[in-house]
Amino acid sequence: MSVKSNFRCVTCTAPVNIAVIKYWGKTDEKRILPTNPSLSVTLGQDELRAKTSVAVSSSFSEDRMWLNGIEQSVSSPRIQNVLKEIRRRAHKRKSGDSKDDIGLTQHVHIVSENNFPTAAGLASSAAGYACLVFALGKLFGVHGEISDIARQGSGSACRSLYGGYVLWKMGSKEDGSDSHAVQVQPETHWPQMRSLILVVSDQKKHVGSTEGMQTTVQTSELMEKRIKLVDKRTEEITQAIKERDFPTFAKITMQESNQLHAVCLDTYPPIFYMTDTSRLIVRLVHAINDISGKVKVAYTFDAGPNACLYLLEEDVPHVLALVRHFFPPSKNMTDSSFVTGLKLDEIKPSSADIAQINIPISEGAVKYVIHTKVGPGPQVLTDPEGSLFTREGKPKLRSSS
Amino acid sequence: MSVKSNFRCVTCTAPVNIAVIKYWGKTDEKRILPTNPSLSVTLGQDELRAKTSVAVSSSFSEDRMWLNGIEQSVSSPRIQNVLKEIRRRAHKRKSGDSKDDIGLTQHVHIVSENNFPTAAGLASSAAGYACLVFALGKLFGVHGEISDIARQGSGSACRSLYGGYVLWKMGSKEDGSDSHAVQVQPETHWPQMRSLILVVSDQKKHVGSTEGMQTTVQTSELMEKRIKLVDKRTEEITQAIKERDFPTFAKITMQESNQLHAVCLDTYPPIFYMTDTSRLIVRLVHAINDISGKVKVAYTFDAGPNACLYLLEEDVPHVLALVRHFFPPSKNMTDSSFVTGLKLDEIKPSSADIAQINIPISEGAVKYVIHTKVGPGPQVLTDPEGSLFTREGKPKLRSSS
Repeated sequence: MSVKSNFRCVTCTAPVNIAVIKYWGKTDEKRILPTNPSLSVTLGQDELRAKTSVAVSSSFSEDRMWLNGIEQSVSSPRIQNVLKEIRRRAHKRKSGDSKDDIGLTQHVHIVSENNFPTAAGLASSAAGYACLVFALGKLFGVHGEISDIARQGSGSACRSLYGGYVLWKMGSKEDGSDSHAVQVQPETHWPQMRSLILVVSDQKKHVGSTEGMQTTVQTSELMEKRIKLVDKRTEEITQAIKERDFPTFAKITMQESNQLHAVCLDTYPPIFYMTDTSRLIVRLVHAINDISGKVKVAYTFDAGPNACLYLLEEDVPHVLALVRHFFPPSKNMTDSSFVTGLKLDEIKPSSADIAQINIPISEGAVKYVIHTKVGPGPQVLTDPEGSLFTREGKPKLRSSS
Repeated sequence: MSVKSNFRCVTCTAPVNIAVIKYWGKTDEKRILPTNPSLSVTLGQDELRAKTSVAVSSSFSEDRMWLNGIEQSVSSPRIQNVLKEIRRRAHKRKSGDSKDDIGLTQHVHIVSENNFPTAAGLASSAAGYACLVFALGKLFGVHGEISDIARQGSGSACRSLYGGYVLWKMGSKEDGSDSHAVQVQPETHWPQMRSLILVVSDQKKHVGSTEGMQTTVQTSELMEKRIKLVDKRTEEITQAIKERDFPTFAKITMQESNQLHAVCLDTYPPIFYMTDTSRLIVRLVHAINDISGKVKVAYTFDAGPNACLYLLEEDVPHVLALVRHFFPPSKNMTDSSFVTGLKLDEIKPSSADIAQINIPISEGAVKYVIHTKVGPGPQVLTDPEGSLFTREGKPKLRSSS
């Protein structure tokens, strides 16, 4: 890990996670304690990941950070919370001279980038904070549970510290120490599970999720009821995952997504994340399930118009063919760039299916599709070529993607 | 009323009402008993009304009905319920020969039309059933409360039997006899109240409200909570109307509309009535209120994308100028046909206002605007020229609008 004597560097990657039981609302804004448990699926890092290099050096005169090629202030309370807490835990473990060995007395430089467009609205902050905390943990030798530290950077980041199916336990302690993530099933548990992320064309500015969930907690009359319903739903979907019961998993996922957006709409002023295209995707998914005579695909939407579809490997060609039929790529896009990620043999949609689905064809409404699967938690990169620092300890700055 | 000896005819008009506390869900599908009380504003009939002529004649060999120029079956349970109940009440009042005098032993012909496009999605069935029941009541001499009969045609029709601000009481009797409308304030109570109906361009078929509300009651987990909240909201808005407290009236109206659409979204499969244009109208209304430093305009949406705005007379020019700026008529529409209804002197929007409102300009997204005010209940037309029957008792059939 060390490139030169007084420069120590660790590079890690961390995954995106997409919740099937949603996090929306805090009981403690400062500690980031949620109003309810949430449960997510960790996605494959080949398609979607944050990569972060963290380094300490006696030559660094201050903490600094570069995100997607652009230097950012480290003064935000969330970054500061993460840095303070990881250093505090490292200090507890080390004594005397060894603090110098691991660079605890030195300043840290952070370089981070995503392998997907930040603008796509794909929960990049969750992957980013998870990666930062994981990398700092490796750099400073902090072992054990660190998802509670990631939680203080961005709530849902705690779930990106594990692969597979991950529960963020609410916890009950006031200091938040028991509000952290646990893996409920590993990524190997249900090998057939796939995801298609439909990135929707959209220029609009959205209400940020931090502000949005705060307003929902303050103004939605239905939110209180929703919070009461989440525990049961979480238990049911955990059981469905355990039993690999796709129809139950899918139905709960869809109901939960809709209920999240229902409380957003019940907020004053109302918050909208789904667009006409999102709603057409919802109609398409229900239509596919109807004509299939079983629930073979589910949608879920976060704080933006993109859809994350969950489905089994065997159903990907059928579903993708219909997605492509009803949301064909715009003419200025090459066909091959419309579906990215895991390779598959695409098929043509059947005319019988098309005849039964009564929704308009919306060219260009879906910008592209990311085909991915369930993946593992954060990884340490051992190849020094993967570092985002040069051998001289300078950030490798690429243009922002 | 009688044109020739054995032909008796009555012609009436009835208003559209737009709910501020929404009816969405029945406890009894057959009797049309609601899950909660609702409260509406009756709109002016010069702009929006149903007109219905009903006639009895010894020459009629069966009950028949024409809606907007097209003959329709009278066999639907709802039409049958209305016809049976009004005849039953008329029978109770009359004895022996007098039944022949009023035509109770004869068949009825019904001709009805609206002065607004049915396709506009403006609650035409409420005005239509209210008008039918009111006209039949006049024809057969049925006095007293008849809104419970209209309710059995179309739930919200009961509210169109009164002018001004109208409450549909849930009632508690199993037979539904106490589930009817009452006027909470007459149309003269708050003379400044105005409405702008923004008719949104939209080709889509929607889930019908009868089917939609049934699915919501069956599947929405949040619906139960909503039902519990409605009583308090109804009391609060009744008080706001009484005190002519526009900001409170407006805020409750908007929250209530959003909550209705929230439970629609929480339905499985979800029901969507609002479109991207509806949502832009919502954003515009909140933006106008924000820059005005007070709540001067409210939106409400029913089972479709059209917005009904409530506002005070003094604020109509300001609000309409901004509606026209952000939703300019499409180029193939003449400027004068964009705003219909009550005359007003339009003004230009101020550039300071426009600069503060960060929403995109959507040409053609609003087809046209109907400017109207609060109006009275159903009316009897005394001028025989207004009849929808010829002097010979034939329906005057115009092409459907």
